[in-house]
Amino acid sequence: MDEASLLSEMEKVMHLRPDVLEWRADFFEGVEDAKKVKNVLEKVRNMAGEVPIIFTCRSCEEGGFKKIGQDVRLKLMGEVVATGNIDAIDLELAVGKTGIDSIKVLAQKNNVALILSYHNFAETPPVESILKKIKQEVSMGADVAKIAVMPKSEEDVINIMRATLMARKQIANPLITVAMGNLGAITRAAGWLFGSDLTFAAGINSSAPGQMPLEELRTAIDILQRAEERN
Amino acid sequence: MDEASLLSEMEKVMHLRPDVLEWRADFFEGVEDAKKVKNVLEKVRNMAGEVPIIFTCRSCEEGGFKKIGQDVRLKLMGEVVATGNIDAIDLELAVGKTGIDSIKVLAQKNNVALILSYHNFAETPPVESILKKIKQEVSMGADVAKIAVMPKSEEDVINIMRATLMARKQIANPLITVAMGNLGAITRAAGWLFGSDLTFAAGINSSAPGQMPLEELRTAIDILQRAEERN
Repeated sequence: MDEASLLSEMEKVMHLRPDVLEWRADFFEGVEDAKKVKNVLEKVRNMAGEVPIIFTCRSCEEGGFKKIGQDVRLKLMGEVVATGNIDAIDLELAVGKTGIDSIKVLAQKNNVALILSYHNFAETPPVESILKKIKQEVSMGADVAKIAVMPKSEEDVINIMRATLMARKQIANPLITVAMGNLGAITRAAGWLFGSDLTFAAGINSSAPGQMPLEELRTAIDILQRAEERN
Repeated sequence: MDEASLLSEMEKVMHLRPDVLEWRADFFEGVEDAKKVKNVLEKVRNMAGEVPIIFTCRSCEEGGFKKIGQDVRLKLMGEVVATGNIDAIDLELAVGKTGIDSIKVLAQKNNVALILSYHNFAETPPVESILKKIKQEVSMGADVAKIAVMPKSEEDVINIMRATLMARKQIANPLITVAMGNLGAITRAAGWLFGSDLTFAAGINSSAPGQMPLEELRTAIDILQRAEERN
């Protein structure tokens, strides 16, 4: 996606009144040029106004759009964090301690929240393993712990909800959990009930399997939350 | 509720295009007079057109609206089943074998589906107990097995979904399961994902804690089912 398309999509997305924006920079054609990224980011920041921005740049091995070396990405992320133009940065747990620590230092200095995430596009690990991943993220310095797994059955969907509920009772940090794909839609609409603090919707194009259009997801959440509060 | 109010509510409800109608006869002021009930039922039947009607008459000990002796109710239900004006009848499992058998015979003869139900307005039993109740309903002659429980925690909400999923794999009969109250709203909107075949919404007034307005529930279900099918 080039700059013009990105800014045009950004304009459309802002009309949908998102609570938070995630820029998946791996979809941006200039992603390997830090200067270009920071230049576009400044425009995105201005258009976003008060809406917090999460900056995410996944390599294709992490479910991202483009193969980008880890060193290149870490350097880019460090520079982006230092701009002061983002509010949170999402980093895969698999990046490892050295990489995470280097971003963590910069993130703290610049008041940027660190989201450490575990993605599994193949399956849903057992409840205990999910819980362990969440705790690992927190112990590695996550301000926000994120889990996104692929369910193969309704049991898997229930298991991510169970793991979220267990984590919610043991961990004070904000959590983001999701079962991706078609089967997992319910975790996007009702994850809040079990302790997930944020969910991702598609602005114009989806960036992960199972993402629902923003307006539809918001409607479903509103209806469920209204029912929750009604009695 | 008198006949005029009932028919006026019925007219409004038909505009909401329900898939199925449940008449909770215990809310009808003339419920103890079988002749009156059958007379109103015929009008309701005509207004319902092709929409199937479930006839339900709960005593207050069963979470119903009025204290009505079991003999009176069984006699009424028998007469109502025999009219040919209903498609299903809902009977509490606690009514016991003799009462259930008497209705079952008439129901089979008149091509009326027998829904045996277990309500617990105080709590959510453990997963295994819920599963046992469902199997008991089937072994007692239920065409459709129904469970409605009160969740006190998010775990309880998850447990009714788990029990439904387990039952779905072991039982061929249609199932209706619900966690009532505010906490249980998600089971009304997403129960279908775990194997519940029918959910209850409020037409005008709700007849159980946690029932959502029909249009809202339908919207939430539509959004979730669309997401389910999208990928």
